[in-house]
Amino acid sequence: MKELIISTKKHKEVIDITEEINQFLENQKQEEGLIFIFALHTTCALTTADLDPGTDLDMLDAFENMVPKLKYRHPHNPSHVGDHIMSSLIGTSLLLPFKNKKLILGTWQRVVLVEFDGPRERKLILKII
Amino acid sequence: MKELIISTKKHKEVIDITEEINQFLENQKQEEGLIFIFALHTTCALTTADLDPGTDLDMLDAFENMVPKLKYRHPHNPSHVGDHIMSSLIGTSLLLPFKNKKLILGTWQRVVLVEFDGPRERKLILKII
Amino acid sequence: MKELIISTKKHKEVIDITEEINQFLENQKQEEGLIFIFALHTTCALTTADLDPGTDLDMLDAFENMVPKLKYRHPHNPSHVGDHIMSSLIGTSLLLPFKNKKLILGTWQRVVLVEFDGPRERKLILKII
Repeated sequence: MKELIISTKKHKEVIDITEEINQFLENQKQEEGLIFIFALHTTCALTTADLDPGTDLDMLDAFENMVPKLKYRHPHNPSHVGDHIMSSLIGTSLLLPFKNKKLILGTWQRVVLVEFDGPRERKLILKII
Repeated sequence: MKELIISTKKHKEVIDITEEINQFLENQKQEEGLIFIFALHTTCALTTADLDPGTDLDMLDAFENMVPKLKYRHPHNPSHVGDHIMSSLIGTSLLLPFKNKKLILGTWQRVVLVEFDGPRERKLILKII
Repeated sequence: MKELIISTKKHKEVIDITEEINQFLENQKQEEGLIFIFALHTTCALTTADLDPGTDLDMLDAFENMVPKLKYRHPHNPSHVGDHIMSSLIGTSLLLPFKNKKLILGTWQRVVLVEFDGPRERKLILKII
Protein backbone atom coordinates (compact mmCIF):
# COMPACT_ATOMS: atom_id res chain seq x y z
CA MET A 1 0.00 0.00 0.00
CA LYS A 2 1.54 3.28 -1.14
CA GLU A 3 0.42 6.91 -1.02
CA LEU A 4 0.44 9.28 -3.98
CA ILE A 5 -0.13 13.01 -3.53
CA ILE A 6 -1.73 14.93 -6.40
CA SER A 7 -1.57 18.73 -6.07
CA THR A 8 -4.55 20.24 -7.81
CA LYS A 9 -4.20 23.78 -9.15
CA LYS A 10 -7.73 25.12 -9.61
CA HIS A 11 -11.04 25.23 -7.74
CA LYS A 12 -12.61 22.79 -10.20
CA GLU A 13 -10.46 20.72 -12.52
CA VAL A 14 -10.21 17.39 -14.36
CA ILE A 15 -6.61 16.21 -13.92
CA ASP A 16 -5.02 13.53 -16.04
CA ILE A 17 -3.13 11.25 -13.61
CA THR A 18 -2.31 8.50 -16.15
CA GLU A 19 1.41 9.31 -16.18
CA GLU A 20 1.64 9.40 -12.39
CA ILE A 21 0.11 5.92 -12.21
CA ASN A 22 2.37 4.61 -14.99
CA GLN A 23 5.42 6.02 -13.19
CA PHE A 24 4.36 4.19 -10.04
CA LEU A 25 3.92 0.94 -12.00
CA GLU A 26 7.38 1.25 -13.60
CA ASN A 27 8.96 1.16 -10.15
CA GLN A 28 7.14 -2.01 -9.06
CA LYS A 29 8.35 -5.60 -9.48
CA GLN A 30 5.05 -7.00 -10.74
CA GLU A 31 4.81 -6.88 -14.55
CA GLU A 32 1.08 -7.53 -14.95
CA GLY A 33 -2.06 -7.33 -12.85
CA LEU A 34 -4.51 -4.83 -11.47
CA ILE A 35 -3.90 -1.52 -9.75
CA PHE A 36 -6.31 -0.18 -7.15
CA ILE A 37 -6.54 3.59 -6.68
CA PHE A 38 -8.53 5.20 -3.87
CA ALA A 39 -9.03 8.90 -3.03
CA LEU A 40 -9.23 9.70 0.70
CA HIS A 41 -11.64 12.59 0.14
CA THR A 42 -15.29 13.55 -0.24
CA THR A 43 -15.00 16.39 -2.78
CA CYS A 44 -13.00 14.76 -5.55
CA ALA A 45 -13.49 11.60 -7.63
CA LEU A 46 -11.63 9.07 -9.77
CA THR A 47 -12.72 7.73 -13.15
CA THR A 48 -11.61 7.20 -16.75
CA ALA A 49 -12.33 9.82 -19.41
CA ASP A 50 -11.81 11.14 -22.92
CA LEU A 51 -9.64 14.25 -22.76
CA ASP A 52 -9.91 15.73 -26.25
CA PRO A 53 -9.16 19.48 -25.99
CA GLY A 54 -11.88 21.23 -23.98
CA THR A 55 -13.58 18.03 -22.86
CA ASP A 56 -12.26 18.50 -19.31
CA LEU A 57 -14.11 21.84 -19.11
CA ASP A 58 -17.18 20.31 -20.79
CA MET A 59 -17.27 17.64 -18.07
CA LEU A 60 -17.02 20.24 -15.29
CA ASP A 61 -19.81 22.31 -16.85
CA ALA A 62 -22.03 19.25 -17.19
CA PHE A 63 -21.38 18.04 -13.61
CA GLU A 64 -22.07 21.54 -12.25
CA ASN A 65 -25.37 21.66 -14.12
CA MET A 66 -26.43 18.13 -13.21
CA VAL A 67 -26.69 18.90 -9.50
CA PRO A 68 -30.21 20.21 -8.81
CA LYS A 69 -30.30 23.70 -7.25
CA LEU A 70 -32.25 22.89 -4.09
CA LYS A 71 -32.39 24.19 -0.52
CA TYR A 72 -29.68 22.00 0.99
CA ARG A 73 -29.16 21.39 4.70
CA HIS A 74 -25.38 20.86 4.65
CA PRO A 75 -23.80 23.03 7.41
CA HIS A 76 -21.28 25.85 6.80
CA ASN A 77 -21.87 26.08 3.05
CA PRO A 78 -24.97 24.55 1.42
CA SER A 79 -23.74 25.52 -2.07
CA HIS A 80 -20.89 23.09 -1.44
CA VAL A 81 -23.20 20.04 -1.30
CA GLY A 82 -22.99 19.44 -5.05
CA ASP A 83 -19.25 18.73 -4.71
CA HIS A 84 -19.97 15.94 -2.22
CA ILE A 85 -22.80 14.56 -4.34
CA MET A 86 -20.75 14.38 -7.54
CA SER A 87 -17.88 12.74 -5.61
CA SER A 88 -20.24 10.03 -4.30
CA LEU A 89 -21.85 9.60 -7.72
CA ILE A 90 -18.64 9.28 -9.77
CA GLY A 91 -16.89 7.38 -7.00
CA THR A 92 -13.54 7.49 -5.20
CA SER A 93 -12.41 3.90 -5.85
CA LEU A 94 -10.97 2.66 -9.15
CA LEU A 95 -9.50 -0.65 -10.35
CA LEU A 96 -7.47 -0.75 -13.58
CA PRO A 97 -5.49 -3.39 -15.54
CA PHE A 98 -1.78 -3.17 -16.37
CA LYS A 99 0.74 -5.14 -18.42
CA ASN A 100 4.50 -4.68 -18.93
CA LYS A 101 4.34 -2.25 -15.98
CA LYS A 102 1.96 0.05 -17.91
CA LEU A 103 -1.78 0.71 -17.70
CA ILE A 104 -3.93 -1.00 -20.33
CA LEU A 105 -6.28 1.71 -21.60
CA GLY A 106 -8.32 2.43 -24.71
CA THR A 107 -6.87 4.72 -27.40
CA TRP A 108 -8.60 7.82 -26.00
CA GLN A 109 -8.93 6.67 -22.42
CA ARG A 110 -7.17 8.48 -19.57
CA VAL A 111 -7.26 8.07 -15.80
CA VAL A 112 -8.55 11.26 -14.20
CA LEU A 113 -8.99 12.85 -10.81
CA VAL A 114 -11.97 15.21 -10.81
CA GLU A 115 -11.34 18.06 -8.37
CA PHE A 116 -14.52 19.76 -7.14
CA ASP A 117 -13.11 21.85 -4.30
CA GLY A 118 -9.45 22.72 -4.92
CA PRO A 119 -6.78 23.75 -5.12
CA ARG A 120 -5.55 21.15 -2.64
CA GLU A 121 -3.21 18.27 -2.00
CA ARG A 122 -5.18 15.11 -2.70
CA LYS A 123 -4.03 11.86 -1.12
CA LEU A 124 -4.47 8.65 -3.10
CA ILE A 125 -3.89 5.08 -1.90
CA LEU A 126 -2.33 2.76 -4.50
CA LYS A 127 -2.17 -1.02 -4.24
CA ILE A 128 -1.19 -3.64 -6.76
CA ILE A 129 -3.14 -6.91 -6.94
CA MET B 1 -16.85 -14.87 0.76
CA LYS B 2 -19.20 -13.75 3.55
CA GLU B 3 -22.69 -12.26 3.62
CA LEU B 4 -23.68 -9.19 5.60
CA ILE B 5 -27.33 -8.21 6.04
CA ILE B 6 -28.17 -4.52 6.45
CA SER B 7 -31.74 -3.80 7.59
CA THR B 8 -32.81 -0.46 6.19
CA LYS B 9 -35.46 1.48 8.13
CA LYS B 10 -36.95 3.98 5.68
CA HIS B 11 -38.22 4.12 2.10
CA LYS B 12 -35.23 6.22 1.04
CA GLU B 13 -32.17 6.48 3.21
CA VAL B 14 -28.38 6.91 3.19
CA ILE B 15 -27.02 4.44 5.74
CA ASP B 16 -23.53 4.62 7.19
CA ILE B 17 -22.16 1.04 7.11
CA THR B 18 -18.55 1.94 8.03
CA GLU B 19 -18.81 0.36 11.49
CA GLU B 20 -20.35 -2.86 10.13
CA ILE B 21 -17.44 -3.22 7.69
CA ASN B 22 -14.88 -2.44 10.39
CA GLN B 23 -16.47 -5.03 12.70
CA PHE B 24 -16.18 -7.60 9.93
CA LEU B 25 -12.50 -6.70 9.39
CA GLU B 26 -11.71 -7.00 13.11
CA ASN B 27 -12.78 -10.65 13.00
CA GLN B 28 -10.55 -11.55 10.04
CA LYS B 29 -6.97 -12.83 10.17
CA GLN B 30 -5.62 -10.55 7.44
CA GLU B 31 -4.26 -7.27 8.84
CA GLU B 32 -4.00 -5.28 5.61
CA GLY B 33 -5.41 -5.37 2.10
CA LEU B 34 -8.56 -4.59 0.19
CA ILE B 35 -12.16 -5.36 1.01
CA PHE B 36 -14.71 -5.92 -1.74
CA ILE B 37 -18.37 -5.12 -1.00
CA PHE B 38 -21.20 -5.98 -3.38
CA ALA B 39 -24.96 -5.37 -3.04
CA LEU B 40 -27.17 -8.12 -4.52
CA HIS B 41 -29.89 -5.64 -5.48
CA THR B 42 -31.10 -3.25 -8.18
CA THR B 43 -32.65 -0.50 -6.01
CA CYS B 44 -29.80 0.32 -3.66
CA ALA B 45 -26.19 1.38 -4.17
CA LEU B 46 -22.80 1.50 -2.43
CA THR B 47 -20.38 4.42 -2.38
CA THR B 48 -18.34 6.68 -0.10
CA ALA B 49 -19.79 9.96 1.17
CA ASP B 50 -19.52 12.94 3.47
CA LEU B 51 -22.14 12.64 6.21
CA ASP B 52 -22.16 16.03 7.86
CA PRO B 53 -25.57 16.52 9.55
CA GLY B 54 -28.30 16.73 6.90
CA THR B 55 -26.06 15.74 4.00
CA ASP B 56 -27.71 12.31 3.81
CA LEU B 57 -31.06 14.00 3.14
CA ASP B 58 -29.42 16.48 0.74
CA MET B 59 -28.07 13.53 -1.27
CA LEU B 60 -31.48 11.86 -1.42
CA ASP B 61 -33.13 15.11 -2.55
CA ALA B 62 -30.48 15.62 -5.24
CA PHE B 63 -30.71 12.02 -6.50
CA GLU B 64 -34.52 12.25 -6.62
CA ASN B 65 -34.33 15.46 -8.65
CA MET B 66 -31.59 14.23 -11.00
CA VAL B 67 -33.80 11.54 -12.51
CA PRO B 68 -35.74 13.07 -15.44
CA LYS B 69 -39.53 12.84 -15.10
CA LEU B 70 -40.29 10.95 -18.31
CA LYS B 71 -42.90 8.46 -19.54
CA TYR B 72 -41.13 5.27 -18.49
CA ARG B 73 -42.00 1.77 -19.77
CA HIS B 74 -41.01 -0.22 -16.65
CA PRO B 75 -43.88 -2.63 -15.82
CA HIS B 76 -45.87 -2.57 -12.53
CA ASN B 77 -44.66 0.83 -11.43
CA PRO B 78 -43.03 3.29 -13.87
CA SER B 79 -42.37 5.83 -11.08
CA HIS B 80 -40.04 3.22 -9.62
CA VAL B 81 -37.62 3.38 -12.58
CA GLY B 82 -35.57 6.18 -11.04
CA ASP B 83 -34.58 3.86 -8.17
CA HIS B 84 -33.09 1.38 -10.66
CA ILE B 85 -31.38 4.13 -12.63
CA MET B 86 -29.68 5.68 -9.60
CA SER B 87 -28.58 2.22 -8.42
CA SER B 88 -26.94 1.54 -11.81
CA LEU B 89 -25.41 5.02 -11.90
CA ILE B 90 -23.89 5.03 -8.39
CA GLY B 91 -23.03 1.34 -8.61
CA THR B 92 -23.40 -1.76 -6.44
CA SER B 93 -19.74 -2.80 -6.29
CA LEU B 94 -17.12 -1.17 -4.06
CA LEU B 95 -13.45 -1.86 -3.29
CA LEU B 96 -11.81 -0.24 -0.25
CA PRO B 97 -8.40 -0.36 1.46
CA PHE B 98 -7.79 -1.46 5.06
CA LYS B 99 -4.86 -1.58 7.48
CA ASN B 100 -4.59 -2.90 11.07
CA LYS B 101 -7.98 -4.55 10.43
CA LYS B 102 -9.63 -1.12 9.88
CA LEU B 103 -10.78 0.75 6.78
CA ILE B 104 -8.47 3.48 5.51
CA LEU B 105 -10.75 6.45 4.85
CA GLY B 106 -10.43 10.22 4.60
CA THR B 107 -11.29 12.36 7.64
CA TRP B 108 -14.88 12.95 6.52
CA GLN B 109 -15.29 9.86 4.40
CA ARG B 110 -17.83 7.16 5.27
CA VAL B 111 -18.95 3.98 3.50
CA VAL B 112 -22.65 4.22 2.70
CA LEU B 113 -25.48 2.12 1.39
CA VAL B 114 -28.02 4.26 -0.45
CA GLU B 115 -31.50 2.75 -0.05
CA PHE B 116 -33.93 3.78 -2.78
CA ASP B 117 -36.78 1.34 -2.12
CA GLY B 118 -36.85 0.29 1.53
CA PRO B 119 -37.38 -0.57 4.23
CA ARG B 120 -35.80 -3.94 3.46
CA GLU B 121 -33.13 -6.44 4.34
CA ARG B 122 -30.23 -5.78 1.98
CA LYS B 123 -27.75 -8.59 1.35
CA LEU B 124 -24.10 -7.65 0.82
CA ILE B 125 -21.26 -9.93 -0.26
CA LEU B 126 -17.92 -9.24 1.45
CA LYS B 127 -14.57 -10.60 0.36
CA ILE B 128 -11.05 -9.76 1.45
CA ILE B 129 -8.27 -9.57 -1.12
CA MET C 1 -5.83 -11.37 -18.53
CA LYS C 2 -8.25 -12.17 -21.35
CA GLU C 3 -10.08 -10.09 -23.91
CA LEU C 4 -13.79 -10.33 -24.65
CA ILE C 5 -15.33 -8.63 -27.68
CA ILE C 6 -18.95 -7.48 -27.46
CA SER C 7 -20.53 -6.46 -30.77
CA THR C 8 -23.15 -3.84 -30.11
CA LYS C 9 -26.03 -3.55 -32.60
CA LYS C 10 -27.54 -0.10 -32.11
CA HIS C 11 -26.43 3.49 -31.68
CA LYS C 12 -27.53 3.50 -28.05
CA GLU C 13 -28.22 0.27 -26.22
CA VAL C 14 -28.11 -1.46 -22.83
CA ILE C 15 -26.69 -4.93 -23.47
CA ASP C 16 -26.98 -7.81 -21.00
CA ILE C 17 -23.51 -9.42 -20.88
CA THR C 18 -24.21 -11.72 -17.90
CA GLU C 19 -24.17 -14.89 -20.02
CA GLU C 20 -20.92 -13.91 -21.76
CA ILE C 21 -19.24 -13.46 -18.37
CA ASN C 22 -20.69 -16.73 -17.04
CA GLN C 23 -19.44 -18.57 -20.14
CA PHE C 24 -15.97 -17.17 -19.53
CA LEU C 25 -16.11 -18.30 -15.87
CA GLU C 26 -17.18 -21.83 -16.83
CA ASN C 27 -13.96 -22.24 -18.80
CA GLN C 28 -11.69 -21.18 -15.93
CA LYS C 29 -10.11 -23.41 -13.29
CA GLN C 30 -10.93 -21.19 -10.32
CA GLU C 31 -14.29 -22.07 -8.75
CA GLU C 32 -14.80 -18.99 -6.59
CA GLY C 33 -13.50 -15.45 -6.37
CA LEU C 34 -13.89 -12.09 -8.04
CA ILE C 35 -13.98 -11.20 -11.70
CA PHE C 36 -12.71 -7.84 -12.92
CA ILE C 37 -14.21 -6.41 -16.13
CA PHE C 38 -12.85 -3.29 -17.83
CA ALA C 39 -14.03 -1.53 -21.02
CA LEU C 40 -11.24 0.00 -23.14
CA HIS C 41 -13.47 2.84 -24.34
CA THR C 42 -14.75 6.34 -23.53
CA THR C 43 -18.31 6.10 -24.92
CA CYS C 44 -19.61 2.99 -23.21
CA ALA C 45 -19.90 1.92 -19.58
CA LEU C 46 -20.24 -1.14 -17.35
CA THR C 47 -22.61 -1.55 -14.41
CA THR C 48 -25.30 -3.79 -12.91
CA ALA C 49 -28.97 -3.20 -13.69
CA ASP C 50 -32.56 -4.36 -13.53
CA LEU C 51 -33.69 -5.41 -17.00
CA ASP C 52 -37.44 -5.79 -16.67
CA PRO C 53 -38.98 -5.34 -20.15
CA GLY C 54 -38.49 -1.77 -21.36
CA THR C 55 -36.16 -0.78 -18.53
CA ASP C 56 -33.17 -0.78 -20.89
CA LEU C 57 -34.90 1.91 -22.99
CA ASP C 58 -35.98 3.77 -19.84
CA MET C 59 -32.34 3.91 -18.74
CA LEU C 60 -31.20 5.25 -22.11
CA ASP C 61 -33.93 7.93 -22.08
CA ALA C 62 -33.00 8.97 -18.55
CA PHE C 63 -29.25 9.10 -19.29
CA GLU C 64 -29.90 11.15 -22.45
CA ASN C 65 -32.00 13.62 -20.47
CA MET C 66 -29.60 13.86 -17.52
CA VAL C 67 -26.85 15.44 -19.60
CA PRO C 68 -27.35 19.23 -19.59
CA LYS C 69 -27.76 20.76 -23.05
CA LEU C 70 -24.88 23.25 -22.94
CA LYS C 71 -22.49 24.84 -25.44
CA TYR C 72 -19.76 22.19 -25.32
CA ARG C 73 -16.19 22.67 -26.58
CA HIS C 74 -15.49 19.05 -27.60
CA PRO C 75 -13.96 19.08 -31.14
CA HIS C 76 -15.55 17.39 -34.19
CA ASN C 77 -18.96 16.88 -32.60
CA PRO C 78 -20.02 18.76 -29.44
CA SER C 79 -23.34 16.87 -29.28
CA HIS C 80 -21.23 13.77 -28.66
CA VAL C 81 -19.90 15.05 -25.30
CA GLY C 82 -22.79 13.56 -23.34
CA ASP C 83 -21.67 10.06 -24.37
CA HIS C 84 -18.23 10.67 -22.82
CA ILE C 85 -19.74 12.22 -19.70
CA MET C 86 -22.13 9.33 -19.03
CA SER C 87 -19.29 6.84 -19.62
CA SER C 88 -17.12 8.61 -17.01
CA LEU C 89 -20.06 8.93 -14.61
CA ILE C 90 -21.25 5.29 -14.76
CA GLY C 91 -17.70 3.98 -15.03
CA THR C 92 -15.78 1.51 -17.19
CA SER C 93 -14.41 -0.73 -14.42
CA LEU C 94 -16.44 -3.39 -12.60
CA LEU C 95 -15.64 -6.03 -9.98
CA LEU C 96 -18.10 -8.88 -9.34
CA PRO C 97 -18.21 -12.01 -7.15
CA PHE C 98 -18.55 -15.58 -8.45
CA LYS C 99 -19.01 -19.06 -6.97
CA ASN C 100 -19.18 -22.50 -8.63
CA LYS C 101 -17.88 -20.76 -11.78
CA LYS C 102 -20.98 -18.53 -11.92
CA LEU C 103 -21.62 -14.88 -11.08
CA ILE C 104 -23.31 -14.19 -7.74
CA LEU C 105 -26.05 -11.68 -8.51
CA GLY C 106 -29.34 -10.57 -7.00
CA THR C 107 -32.59 -12.03 -8.35
CA TRP C 108 -33.15 -9.17 -10.81
CA GLN C 109 -29.56 -8.10 -11.19
CA ARG C 110 -27.79 -8.33 -14.56
CA VAL C 111 -24.35 -7.23 -15.74
CA VAL C 112 -24.72 -4.66 -18.52
CA LEU C 113 -22.64 -2.78 -21.05
CA VAL C 114 -24.22 0.59 -21.81
CA GLU C 115 -23.45 1.56 -25.43
CA PHE C 116 -23.65 5.31 -26.08
CA ASP C 117 -22.06 5.47 -29.54
CA GLY C 118 -22.55 2.21 -31.43
CA PRO C 119 -22.88 0.01 -33.23
CA ARG C 120 -19.30 -1.11 -32.60
CA GLU C 121 -17.03 -3.85 -31.42
CA ARG C 122 -16.32 -3.17 -27.77
CA LYS C 123 -13.20 -4.67 -26.20
CA LEU C 124 -13.38 -5.79 -22.57
CA ILE C 125 -10.50 -6.95 -20.37
CA LEU C 126 -11.36 -9.81 -18.01
CA LYS C 127 -9.28 -10.96 -15.07
CA ILE C 128 -10.00 -13.36 -12.26
CA ILE C 129 -8.79 -12.57 -8.74
